[in-house]
Amino acid sequence: MGKKNQQEFVQHITARNEDFSQWYTDVVRLADLMDYTPVRGCMAIKPYGYAIWELIQQQMDAEFKRTGHKNVSMPMLIPESLLLKEADHVEGFAPEVAWVTQGGTEPLTERLAIRPTSETIFCTMYARWVQSWRDLPLLYNQWCSVMRWEKTTRPFLRTSEFLWQEGHTIHATAEEAQEETMKMLGVYRDFCEQILAIPVYCGQKSEKEKFAGARATYSVEAMMQDGKALQSGTSHNFGTNFSEPFEIKFLDKDGVQKFAHETSWGTSTRLIGAIIMTHGDERGLKLPPKIAPIQCVVVPVAAHKEGVLEGARGIADKLRALGLRVEFDDRDNVTPGWKFNEWELKGVPIRIEVGPRDLAENKVVCVRRDTFEKESVAIDAIETVIPQMLEAIQTNLFEIARNFRDTHTADVFNMDELEKQVNGGYARAMWCGDQACEDLIKERYSATSRCMPFDQTPIAETCVCCGKPAKKLIYFAKAY
Amino acid sequence: MGKKNQQEFVQHITARNEDFSQWYTDVVRLADLMDYTPVRGCMAIKPYGYAIWELIQQQMDAEFKRTGHKNVSMPMLIPESLLLKEADHVEGFAPEVAWVTQGGTEPLTERLAIRPTSETIFCTMYARWVQSWRDLPLLYNQWCSVMRWEKTTRPFLRTSEFLWQEGHTIHATAEEAQEETMKMLGVYRDFCEQILAIPVYCGQKSEKEKFAGARATYSVEAMMQDGKALQSGTSHNFGTNFSEPFEIKFLDKDGVQKFAHETSWGTSTRLIGAIIMTHGDERGLKLPPKIAPIQCVVVPVAAHKEGVLEGARGIADKLRALGLRVEFDDRDNVTPGWKFNEWELKGVPIRIEVGPRDLAENKVVCVRRDTFEKESVAIDAIETVIPQMLEAIQTNLFEIARNFRDTHTADVFNMDELEKQVNGGYARAMWCGDQACEDLIKERYSATSRCMPFDQTPIAETCVCCGKPAKKLIYFAKAY
Repeated sequence: MGKKNQQEFVQHITARNEDFSQWYTDVVRLADLMDYTPVRGCMAIKPYGYAIWELIQQQMDAEFKRTGHKNVSMPMLIPESLLLKEADHVEGFAPEVAWVTQGGTEPLTERLAIRPTSETIFCTMYARWVQSWRDLPLLYNQWCSVMRWEKTTRPFLRTSEFLWQEGHTIHATAEEAQEETMKMLGVYRDFCEQILAIPVYCGQKSEKEKFAGARATYSVEAMMQDGKALQSGTSHNFGTNFSEPFEIKFLDKDGVQKFAHETSWGTSTRLIGAIIMTHGDERGLKLPPKIAPIQCVVVPVAAHKEGVLEGARGIADKLRALGLRVEFDDRDNVTPGWKFNEWELKGVPIRIEVGPRDLAENKVVCVRRDTFEKESVAIDAIETVIPQMLEAIQTNLFEIARNFRDTHTADVFNMDELEKQVNGGYARAMWCGDQACEDLIKERYSATSRCMPFDQTPIAETCVCCGKPAKKLIYFAKAY
Repeated sequence: MGKKNQQEFVQHITARNEDFSQWYTDVVRLADLMDYTPVRGCMAIKPYGYAIWELIQQQMDAEFKRTGHKNVSMPMLIPESLLLKEADHVEGFAPEVAWVTQGGTEPLTERLAIRPTSETIFCTMYARWVQSWRDLPLLYNQWCSVMRWEKTTRPFLRTSEFLWQEGHTIHATAEEAQEETMKMLGVYRDFCEQILAIPVYCGQKSEKEKFAGARATYSVEAMMQDGKALQSGTSHNFGTNFSEPFEIKFLDKDGVQKFAHETSWGTSTRLIGAIIMTHGDERGLKLPPKIAPIQCVVVPVAAHKEGVLEGARGIADKLRALGLRVEFDDRDNVTPGWKFNEWELKGVPIRIEVGPRDLAENKVVCVRRDTFEKESVAIDAIETVIPQMLEAIQTNLFEIARNFRDTHTADVFNMDELEKQVNGGYARAMWCGDQACEDLIKERYSATSRCMPFDQTPIAETCVCCGKPAKKLIYFAKAY
């Protein structure tokens, strides 16, 4: 296949700086991550996209277990009466609930919500399962799908149904609940940074932006390549907001009946959107090795020549034996050039080209997806070089993303500066704490407050919006 | 704790021969596998029950991948129009569908079914994804929950919502589809026998008992300790029954447009019910080591004495280092006797008692859950002995179950014999092939045809029911 066809292959991807949103849609579709379905706002996640989710699940679940959590499964349907028990919660979620009103041939006497989130059913069960301080804490999580009847949807970023995990824990004291809330925020931060190579800002959400029913919400906020924010995980402290209406009481050591303190925390298939928009480029996906379903692809070149297929297969087997995720692409109906393009589109971190001349010299050519650097590697050294190269790619992707994030974050001190800064980045600003200022900023610049970082060293004395005395340091950005 | 309390601990479990059904319910509840919820027919699977499911998932998923299958995620909602496309299918499932009729604040123009099974949505997507013979086969699976609005429910065995996996594949030829159908039946058989230690009969379902919309259904059938059958996995060949209405066509090598051939196959959390009812006893669960969330529990005895806790912890660490799933039970608020009972109830295969006298002699006491045999084992030998003992338990549980199954299966040649045999076992009989005989046997003895084994060597010439010439060898049993 000549250059012409290679160009055709990539021509369908819109340039990022031309139309970032269309670029995203192109990549998602061409990399074969998902497809649209006849079900409004619901997507089919195809094998390659789902394989990324499985790697997220495995590695995140291991962290949950390491930190003492256990998985459970709760019903997907929630009776309306349960959903109504916590006033803020129902107000936040009722508008986007899908309702089951008929079971088999009979109309139901009470409507059932497909869970938009599961605080209410967890609390119902926790009220049964907890009697004494000895039963606490309960540290449970579930992997499932939830449904929110969204008006506008985008693959992975906002869909009516999405896959997620939701942790729900209850504790004897406010201190323990807060410690758990922070611990899981830390798990999310480390996961984003170390596994997904996505740097995040962490902090507390404003009252306006917090979860319906929570006393405090904390989030990890990533920055996409268009400078917009993507909330990538949230951790909530409910205090006794739910345990009071749901009557989750326990007999404490001191013989007194007390309400338990609750937390919840979640991440979703949205993380796949974050990976795409943090790392991708004009050629498509660029996957961090730790989350890549295929870490290296071995492509025979001039495969008809003697020994090439066998040699290439041998390389693939060697690398598989190291526990790496390896694809051996021996298709005979497309050219090597086509394959190179396809695997670049799919974001495979390393391509290994195996041709007759290389083999004769006991060498192969390794090409990095992140830098397009080509390196000739002795076959004897491949078991050392490839794992090192994967580590280098993982680190490099994080460094590039962090550099981008840092150079697209700036301190702003007035509304003009804020307007300019949120047009392609994060604005760090002082804020008086009044929702009116958040509302105005949203109305004027379509930017929302993202989070208040834990380091609250002030950068000015007055609110960026109203000029009144400032109380909080906070990030503003346009957001997905 | 004295004997009195130990007796109290187990007194809640009904004897199996007194009321098997109540015994099952007692074990499920006391072993803390699940709990009932306020949602009709839906259960909460608690950590210990879910851990069993996770071990099933991991090991079965590895088999699916080894046999070339990939995981995907399809929408949980299915528009009514899709469900209606295959006539037999909708007739079979419509009566037990939960319907979503409202999304947010708006009534829907078309009702959406919560998937009772996903053939219709897979076929819709396959019709888009397949153009050429080069696209085939597609070998996809999903792990999810489905909903069937059951009238009477029992934990794990029959619930409105249940967790399962459903494989859906399409192929270029009838032969390949049949090969796939058989291959996955084989995967289920091996999984039941080798991982769950449950012997199964395999064979084809009768026309009456086959899946709604299938050309042929095959199943693996286990026998519970009350002699009743539990269908534990099914594999269906649809031929082109779905690909025709859904228009899954491909351009074959010969340039002709053809309909693809489809299969599907599934197992569910029902397998947990099968484990309980195949292996359990008066003391509770008895888990095969390969599926036990805890394979050995280490219990310190006289833990207040110097060195006991440390010694016991050391044993636990040693065994964990082997990759075993180990619980170190250092609770100080219950006695060793209480712990022994609790871990027996929970079916942990091996209990290791570590007391001061044993430690002084560099020994521990190992107790097998399957035989209650006690063995004094030198601490130096423990890393060899325990893995061997786990293997022995796995084998023994299978042998016991197979022996029970074999001695509770008999050939029958008339209706009297059949009546007696299905009252506590499987009846193997000749059958004319007419549904009228199945109907009569069901009406009179509440027994159903289970499957027609692949070895069809006849045992008689006439139908067990009507006396007409027999066509098939088939198993009858009462079933869950």
